[in-house]
Amino acid sequence: MEKKVVVALDAMGGDYAPSEQVKGAVEAVGESKDIKVLLVGKEDEINGELKKYTFDKESIEVVHADEVIANDESPTKAIREKKNSSIVTAMKLVREEKADAMVSSGSTGALLVGGQLLVGRIKGVKRTPLAPFIPTKKGASILIDCGANVDARPEHLVQFARMGSIYYKNVMGKERPTVGIVNIGSEEEKGNQLVKDTFPLLKGCSDINFVGNIEAREIPKGACDVIVTEAFVGNVILKLFEGLASTLLGSIKQGFLSSFRSKIGALLLKPALKKTLKQFDVSEQGGAPLLGLKGLVVKAHGNAKSLDTKCAIIQCVTFKKQNISRQIKQSIAGEEK
Amino acid sequence: MEKKVVVALDAMGGDYAPSEQVKGAVEAVGESKDIKVLLVGKEDEINGELKKYTFDKESIEVVHADEVIANDESPTKAIREKKNSSIVTAMKLVREEKADAMVSSGSTGALLVGGQLLVGRIKGVKRTPLAPFIPTKKGASILIDCGANVDARPEHLVQFARMGSIYYKNVMGKERPTVGIVNIGSEEEKGNQLVKDTFPLLKGCSDINFVGNIEAREIPKGACDVIVTEAFVGNVILKLFEGLASTLLGSIKQGFLSSFRSKIGALLLKPALKKTLKQFDVSEQGGAPLLGLKGLVVKAHGNAKSLDTKCAIIQCVTFKKQNISRQIKQSIAGEEK
Repeated sequence: MEKKVVVALDAMGGDYAPSEQVKGAVEAVGESKDIKVLLVGKEDEINGELKKYTFDKESIEVVHADEVIANDESPTKAIREKKNSSIVTAMKLVREEKADAMVSSGSTGALLVGGQLLVGRIKGVKRTPLAPFIPTKKGASILIDCGANVDARPEHLVQFARMGSIYYKNVMGKERPTVGIVNIGSEEEKGNQLVKDTFPLLKGCSDINFVGNIEAREIPKGACDVIVTEAFVGNVILKLFEGLASTLLGSIKQGFLSSFRSKIGALLLKPALKKTLKQFDVSEQGGAPLLGLKGLVVKAHGNAKSLDTKCAIIQCVTFKKQNISRQIKQSIAGEEK
Repeated sequence: MEKKVVVALDAMGGDYAPSEQVKGAVEAVGESKDIKVLLVGKEDEINGELKKYTFDKESIEVVHADEVIANDESPTKAIREKKNSSIVTAMKLVREEKADAMVSSGSTGALLVGGQLLVGRIKGVKRTPLAPFIPTKKGASILIDCGANVDARPEHLVQFARMGSIYYKNVMGKERPTVGIVNIGSEEEKGNQLVKDTFPLLKGCSDINFVGNIEAREIPKGACDVIVTEAFVGNVILKLFEGLASTLLGSIKQGFLSSFRSKIGALLLKPALKKTLKQFDVSEQGGAPLLGLKGLVVKAHGNAKSLDTKCAIIQCVTFKKQNISRQIKQSIAGEEK
């Protein structure tokens, strides 16, 4: 029998923790025999939730951790001081290879800091980017980096392109995914100093299928598979994407209720509209991995429900089975030759 | 009789030039007796279009210019070498005070360079930002800077906040408009070096109604009136806004045609949907001024039709009558005391 992929789930992080996290874990092990989930957090609360379900007892285990890191805490301080928090405990399970991966809907900052300090970077990796999928007309692209380490240097962006390509290829099954860099024009000489300095480096990498500058306007159309950008800009893109999609769709719904005529129309249109809403919902895209760490750390959306949690857990199986970390390690080691 | 506001219109710039530009000029002078338009460009072509309409001959004049600056030309080179281009000719009219303002749907880069070299900056103004309105749930915010001068310094952003506040107040009639700076978190200590250095400066300005950091997610909700950001990020926001709105609405429309049921629904919903589409259409927001110049330069959308052109021309009347340039001059002079 093949060994199960063990995922440590931070049961205490997220707006609906621990109930939706526990439910998501039960659903994940129900769907795939390949998974074992370690539910990390306050034992009493987790067991209270677990009682509601029937599940294979071999596939879920509770690991007690009595502290919780809140979203508004200083990440560095919290990781150093809250040694019994669910995040720190889950990360230690990954570091000690008792878990293959960890998933959390908790503080992004704490995950980024903890990833570096507790799980550790792969040798040669300079920065560990957060790489969520964003929905596009053609499917999905990854946006790398959306983390909190801003003011990147050109060599960081080149590593992002490399790690992003490996990740996209393995998860989406596409050979030589296209890579673009976010810029304010499509011509080579345009942009800020960082982009101008990075462009020739990307152009010179034979292992990267670089297609040049892409303008933000082209992103929702699916201009390329891997969208490389510095974290400040990536964060702005990700959040504007979420905010605009929800504001726009909210306004459309509101318009639908503005007259009797439009109410009838809306009733008839509901199924078609729901499908589109789903297609452009950032939270439907599962969790975002932190790339370049020795083990897998996945950030799930802060308002994750059980479905999102289940998807993020199942995502870890692909990551582990395709051995993405080892592929990244080899690729980064290859850089120095 | 009050003197007319004279607007030099680049009749040759834009995807539908000169026909939509000429039509827009005719519509503008038809709507307001306060306006005189100088149509700048190839005399023969412009007169050919003008023949189609009846209009007050006192309100439209043709100024011949036989060259055109294309979008893909180097802006600096084009402004220096094409002395008989419509853009350079229109700018000279502003510099020589033969026109109060100029409007163009042509090359943004050429307008930015030409604005600096030919019209000239107000004394003390360090950079001249491009400040378009973007639609929000509450109405509209201005996004400053969306130009091509990237890698700004903190003192540039402070001037942007100051000029943007004056512009917003005069155009929207709101005293003490709120000013926010784009950041990747709402806490004061977050962000890249530029934002961290700018935050305390903005906080210390008594003439700026600074409300702190705003996340990109909040922009479509109408988080503040004046959104201050460096041009690279501003450009990304503006273009993602355009691209996502059009992709999303395109997908919704497509979904509406997916079944007989939804087609009927769509027919009933058309008026409500059209209203929402209009509300979030960036091109409905008129032209974007270049702030901080001695005269007014307005960039209209590259795909401007006659309606957009008309709006951009009429916008110049407010700018001129409220004497926004003088207000900016006084405010910037006040900085040095």
